[in-house]
Amino acid sequence: MSASDRSGAPPALRRVAVVGGGLIGASFALASRALEGIEDVAVWDRDAATREAASGLGLRVASDLAGTVRDADLVLVAVPVPAIAEVVVQVDAVLTSPAILTDTGSVKSRVVLEVEGSPLRFVRFIAGHPMAGSERSGIDAADGKLFQGASWMLTPTPTSDPGAFEAVGAHLRRIGARVLAVSPELHDRVVAVASHLPQTIASTLMVQAADVADDLGDAVLSVAGGGFRDVTRIAASEPELWVGILLENRAAVLEALDDYAGRLHQVRELLAAADGAALRRWLADGRTARRRLPEKATVSDLVDLVVAVADAPGALATVTTALGEAGVNIEDLSMRHASSGDRGALVVAVDGREAADRALRLLAERGVHAHVEPRTAG
Amino acid sequence: MSASDRSGAPPALRRVAVVGGGLIGASFALASRALEGIEDVAVWDRDAATREAASGLGLRVASDLAGTVRDADLVLVAVPVPAIAEVVVQVDAVLTSPAILTDTGSVKSRVVLEVEGSPLRFVRFIAGHPMAGSERSGIDAADGKLFQGASWMLTPTPTSDPGAFEAVGAHLRRIGARVLAVSPELHDRVVAVASHLPQTIASTLMVQAADVADDLGDAVLSVAGGGFRDVTRIAASEPELWVGILLENRAAVLEALDDYAGRLHQVRELLAAADGAALRRWLADGRTARRRLPEKATVSDLVDLVVAVADAPGALATVTTALGEAGVNIEDLSMRHASSGDRGALVVAVDGREAADRALRLLAERGVHAHVEPRTAG
Repeated sequence: MSASDRSGAPPALRRVAVVGGGLIGASFALASRALEGIEDVAVWDRDAATREAASGLGLRVASDLAGTVRDADLVLVAVPVPAIAEVVVQVDAVLTSPAILTDTGSVKSRVVLEVEGSPLRFVRFIAGHPMAGSERSGIDAADGKLFQGASWMLTPTPTSDPGAFEAVGAHLRRIGARVLAVSPELHDRVVAVASHLPQTIASTLMVQAADVADDLGDAVLSVAGGGFRDVTRIAASEPELWVGILLENRAAVLEALDDYAGRLHQVRELLAAADGAALRRWLADGRTARRRLPEKATVSDLVDLVVAVADAPGALATVTTALGEAGVNIEDLSMRHASSGDRGALVVAVDGREAADRALRLLAERGVHAHVEPRTAG
Repeated sequence: MSASDRSGAPPALRRVAVVGGGLIGASFALASRALEGIEDVAVWDRDAATREAASGLGLRVASDLAGTVRDADLVLVAVPVPAIAEVVVQVDAVLTSPAILTDTGSVKSRVVLEVEGSPLRFVRFIAGHPMAGSERSGIDAADGKLFQGASWMLTPTPTSDPGAFEAVGAHLRRIGARVLAVSPELHDRVVAVASHLPQTIASTLMVQAADVADDLGDAVLSVAGGGFRDVTRIAASEPELWVGILLENRAAVLEALDDYAGRLHQVRELLAAADGAALRRWLADGRTARRRLPEKATVSDLVDLVVAVADAPGALATVTTALGEAGVNIEDLSMRHASSGDRGALVVAVDGREAADRALRLLAERGVHAHVEPRTAG
């Protein structure tokens, strides 16, 4: 049951435009086109070869940005972080009616600050970041199933339009993503650990192994087994993309990297001291944590959290980012408007009673009252 | 064409015994049983539940070690490194005729030293180490296809029996492994970089992410995408196994870890200085190296290297470990014995002319003359 079936939510987004036809943008276009009820999916890229490839995939390619986004309900801006705010302003200038716009930048604080500081006429902006990707890049690697089971973070703020958040979230769920809302600042610290640090770790190991092979012989690389291949897989990622990401999120990456270096040094000292008991505890901690890592599971047991809210946009961000902090995905979201008066309710579906209880505790800590309602239909 | 078809090599090994029924031992037993001409595959483990599981897999389980190995042609000792030398001596004591024995220890210098220092009656020892495994462990994870395409390092020394090396190599190739011969010392430095450092890196990241989740909220783990999952996959490995490996190979792991920490610090400084150009070069180096990483390819184009050797065991280790240093797998190996006189030839098949040329250069540097012969049948 979609959000729009459950409330007076806006109708599903039918006209989708994508600016930036790389792996993420093109995959989003393919995934969106496969949805029922979609009337148009257009792609724009400043690179002519990419536009040609998009056309070859059967996506609409107009002669310019204006022709691409003019009539869209939903615009995805999938360009490098430094260009996002400027592209949002350009899109706003050529829109002829209100549209929801979301981006895919790997860093969010700066993007949100820049966009929310821009004068916009028609754009309703909800910042986002899909945690999907691949060591492959470009439109040739596009895959309409790329977001199936992947997390897609949204970073609503107190000024975000609740209806836009609801509609974007519903669309993302339709293409298979799991939506998690967090604040822009938390997003940047989270991805530093969950994405940017792993990239740094992997690239450093790969460069070392290649240098050691120059010194000790190619055996180092010939014998590399599954473990080495797994750890270094993302070292094959696009350098240009990653330079931008690391520089944009420099402060948070440095924090994560310094933490990591300190931990690695501790392990080194344990090993130098041949402290088997401490090494065993450390390895066991890692094993326990890795085994607890949530699998890309299908949603099984939806539970509705009902939160009474004043009909103010700020409440949405407060509630949804509290859930995000607890790691609770938003499986569905709708707003119930009170028939009279200024209070309504936000209804958020989460997966399972355990997640609902975690969310309730976190909301209670923030003075937000919520309760759980049984779901009659899934 | 197998080695034994090409020369007066010993007949294929028909009676296989495995001591230690963990993931590696049990997988080897299953893989061996699937070969044509195998008459018996027996497994011994000191743990009764493991013996029962082995029996459940249809492997022969005797009432003691002696009954397991007594009549074997080939014994695989797949026990933890500290126990290997002792088990080899125990096996030797209960053998009634000569048998080839190989082990699977993740560290080789110490094992080779200990075993070669033991008085052995019947055991002909060739130390080995399969670069296969999994974050899963134990006989329940056993898989007869585990070694398909995986590297299996052998570490022959000047005292190794060439016929035993030839027979073990042929058996390993029959179960799908790619054989690479290196010296025990080089082995330990190679696996420190290709296996033990990745494990350390992965476990450290996983522990950090779990600690950060305690601090910042579970979002860190909820959003973990494919990159994080790949890098941390082996953090789920068996702690007991890895404590042993890291401690056994402590010197080489510390060397690799210090190198890594120094490189990570350099990257940190580049990031702190926002040196985009240098970061781009580093990321590009990593990408180039990762893309060059040899795939688990099937052997396509065998070329024979023919090396004239005095009929002395020492020549075998010299030639085969030179190839290993160049990262060249041994796809086939046989000895041609001169009909008269004391000189014969070692015939080593390698994959492709490029590998053959690399091997020829390396052998020439060591004063070993070799030439390439066309292969009439593959």
